[in-house]
Amino acid sequence: VQSTGLRLEPGLPQSFKMFGLLPFADPLDREAFDLREEGLRHPLLMAQYQVLDAGRFPVIIQLLGLDPLARSEVARRLLEWMDARHIRLVAFVGGEGEAETRPWLWKFWKRLPPKGKAGLFLSTWYDSLLKDQILQPDAATLENRAEDINRFEKLLTDEGALLIKFALIAPEHDIKECVRGRLGRKKKPAPWKFSEEDEAIGRVVLDNYAHASNALESLCALTSPPHARWSPIAAGDDRAREIMVGEAVYEALEARLRTPPAPAGVPGLPAHRGPNVLKTLSLDQPLKREDYEARLILAQERLARLTTSSAFEKCACIIAFEGHDAAGKGGAIRRLVQGIDPRLLRMVPVAAPTDEEQAQPWLWRFWRHVPAPGTVTIFDRTWYGRVLVERVEGFAQPHEWGRAYQEIRDFERSITEGGTVLVKFWLAISAEEQLSRFKAREETPHKRHKITPDDWRNREKWEGYQSAIHDMITRTHLDRAPWIMVEANNKLFARIKVIETVCEAVEKAMRGGRKA
Amino acid sequence: VQSTGLRLEPGLPQSFKMFGLLPFADPLDREAFDLREEGLRHPLLMAQYQVLDAGRFPVIIQLLGLDPLARSEVARRLLEWMDARHIRLVAFVGGEGEAETRPWLWKFWKRLPPKGKAGLFLSTWYDSLLKDQILQPDAATLENRAEDINRFEKLLTDEGALLIKFALIAPEHDIKECVRGRLGRKKKPAPWKFSEEDEAIGRVVLDNYAHASNALESLCALTSPPHARWSPIAAGDDRAREIMVGEAVYEALEARLRTPPAPAGVPGLPAHRGPNVLKTLSLDQPLKREDYEARLILAQERLARLTTSSAFEKCACIIAFEGHDAAGKGGAIRRLVQGIDPRLLRMVPVAAPTDEEQAQPWLWRFWRHVPAPGTVTIFDRTWYGRVLVERVEGFAQPHEWGRAYQEIRDFERSITEGGTVLVKFWLAISAEEQLSRFKAREETPHKRHKITPDDWRNREKWEGYQSAIHDMITRTHLDRAPWIMVEANNKLFARIKVIETVCEAVEKAMRGGRKA
Repeated sequence: VQSTGLRLEPGLPQSFKMFGLLPFADPLDREAFDLREEGLRHPLLMAQYQVLDAGRFPVIIQLLGLDPLARSEVARRLLEWMDARHIRLVAFVGGEGEAETRPWLWKFWKRLPPKGKAGLFLSTWYDSLLKDQILQPDAATLENRAEDINRFEKLLTDEGALLIKFALIAPEHDIKECVRGRLGRKKKPAPWKFSEEDEAIGRVVLDNYAHASNALESLCALTSPPHARWSPIAAGDDRAREIMVGEAVYEALEARLRTPPAPAGVPGLPAHRGPNVLKTLSLDQPLKREDYEARLILAQERLARLTTSSAFEKCACIIAFEGHDAAGKGGAIRRLVQGIDPRLLRMVPVAAPTDEEQAQPWLWRFWRHVPAPGTVTIFDRTWYGRVLVERVEGFAQPHEWGRAYQEIRDFERSITEGGTVLVKFWLAISAEEQLSRFKAREETPHKRHKITPDDWRNREKWEGYQSAIHDMITRTHLDRAPWIMVEANNKLFARIKVIETVCEAVEKAMRGGRKA
Repeated sequence: VQSTGLRLEPGLPQSFKMFGLLPFADPLDREAFDLREEGLRHPLLMAQYQVLDAGRFPVIIQLLGLDPLARSEVARRLLEWMDARHIRLVAFVGGEGEAETRPWLWKFWKRLPPKGKAGLFLSTWYDSLLKDQILQPDAATLENRAEDINRFEKLLTDEGALLIKFALIAPEHDIKECVRGRLGRKKKPAPWKFSEEDEAIGRVVLDNYAHASNALESLCALTSPPHARWSPIAAGDDRAREIMVGEAVYEALEARLRTPPAPAGVPGLPAHRGPNVLKTLSLDQPLKREDYEARLILAQERLARLTTSSAFEKCACIIAFEGHDAAGKGGAIRRLVQGIDPRLLRMVPVAAPTDEEQAQPWLWRFWRHVPAPGTVTIFDRTWYGRVLVERVEGFAQPHEWGRAYQEIRDFERSITEGGTVLVKFWLAISAEEQLSRFKAREETPHKRHKITPDDWRNREKWEGYQSAIHDMITRTHLDRAPWIMVEANNKLFARIKVIETVCEAVEKAMRGGRKA
């Protein structure tokens, strides 16, 4: 690959006033373009195949800019140079549909490329934010959303993704020409799609270019941390722009193939001091069977009324179950389920990841189950496996589970901020109670399938689990996603506490209303 | 499992007037229920685990009926008896969303349970048809849709699914009581969800029960072929109904575990007589490079205009590529792609099925890529692999590829009847041309990755492939999904023919308008 003439800025510090200071590159004539293209194409394609064969990381290419056509033009060129079959194109041209009712990143979660493949994002997770900042600027929203994005991109890169972000910057005059052409003030027919969003932004560009340009600049400045810098591509000239992008993609692929990144994330945690939260529980709680039966029916009826009410149609509810082995999760879930119209219910048992799940960030297999409004999703074991079994058994590296607490907090915030109720249960039993339940299971023929050698092995690591549980509870107990500790030596008590707690959480949420 | 007292009809012949003749079962008192339940629960659960452990087939349980609550009640009981974690509940309580713009079975395709699991369908593929027949009866629609359903269920059962269909029949008086309660003419609050659909049907049930009941009966009668019979459950009494369903599920699981079904489907095809369609082609078509270049740009611009036009927003387009190895699919696709706004484009390269895909009917991995309106999806190799490489190499059994022609016709009809344009290309080259291209690839360093030992092995089976291609073309050449044979010894000619053909197909569809 030749690398003469045009230079690409490798990245920008936070406060860089990028567009004003960035020199526009000279146009590239046909001959010069052909020469550069000839040097680029084969190496770029080979690098793409190496990434594909290695299958170790996904490539996420984002294109952002004010020129409504530049993104399609650049993408078209990349599709010509690379093997389009292994590029997942991501663009939203129609309405939001289902995505409106989910966390705002949901539609991108679903479309991330798997390891080995590239995703070319013509609609990016910056688009709605950029549009809002152009049409209705609001500094607080900008900062909050930018922070969401930085966290999300950190998760992606920590999980191995190669992130390449291009801000396509054309001279003011060129953009205005283009927008004018698209808004019907010129005769030439539109070669590419021009969405309503493009049009809204285009009108601002014509009326107040400086404002639109500042909005783009601020957004990029706020979202250029070291792990995910923007590469501004400053060229009005199509050929120059395309060659620069192509060369930058090639360089990024090559660099990544040559030098795998160091493991990212906090390496584990210091041992905690002070008492374990589990020690503060009185695990034996009284509840007589006759009281249990009366309260069970009442609680189930209450839950049925709540979840079939019209107010609930705008909420959704996730109920997450964790607990010691044999703590009675299955039994508690069975009673809970009886209070929910099966039409509104989804069950998610956590099993070994499928190969499609393994080709994605670790949270992806939970992202895909984020519920639709008006429904209840029950997870039997959850994303907390990352900081429990995967930590204790060493299936995850310390830097992986070490950063998972933050990743989980971000995930749960993204769920709850749309109004979804999230209730997390830890079912706690004592070591003695567990032993007696294990033995009972072994002795009861129809319960024998419920006890495996794994259960006995886990039990030997009881103390390791107790520490991991303590860290988990204390680090992920959030206002809107609290841990509910369930004293479960008495199964009857535990079952009632579970259902009544869910009812209270739903009632509270419905009183509060759904946040838009 | 006890099996005294109540009997379940095993199935019904086509013309059986089922509801009038079916005796209603006696109510079951608490004691009798407890006894039957005790005999049922453990065997049912163990049978479920056996199905899960075997992982060989999915279980699809459908619940249909006029009583708006019966389905939820029965499902609730099954969830109590079985392990709810391994049951995928399928119900649609909100709007259609994305599903409105896809083939009508699409939302069910997406939610089929994988092998080993059970799907409990509270919303079934009968619902919309039943509703239409109750609210706006139309015999032609009924028959067409019923036929669609029979074909779909045949595919499912041929692919191994265990299909269990319950028509829940309550006495007229009971249903009316229930509907009245739900429509607000009684005071008791609603325990389960009552959708707008339930309400619409409920009103007809109150006004004209015989009509609603006849509609259900006709629908069931038309959709009871031997491989997918309805089991009517005739009981107004909740306990009797639930026990009968539970016992029937158990019996179906047991029977299936004991006796695996015989391979279903036509065992292959007779050797074809007469000339091979491939022989009728003049593979060498003239086109000079300068003419090619001029026509290429025109064709790409024409395609860009068409696919970005507002008329196309209601269409969608699938372009399917098959052809001899080295026939130039990749090059043709690359030129085609250049005429499509990347924002509207999706590429689907056909690779080995993932494990999620392997747990589903063979067409599932194509169902999942049925495009949204306004977009173009390009398949590089397609579902025709079933009757090409899988047939010739023996990866599919003769009874599997033998029935695939019909399955493919059904699939393509379901795509095109909604207005999606489907263009299927066969790129044909001669054996000599292939040989010279293989050699050229081996000699060109940057094309060497395009030739593998597999290509040489396939070439040795040239004649076997020629027969398979002939059968495929002649059996799946449909009015609305025609095969386009592309004479591809001259690559330039082939590329132009591909793009111009796509343009013509889209133009024709837009002239015709989208069929609702």
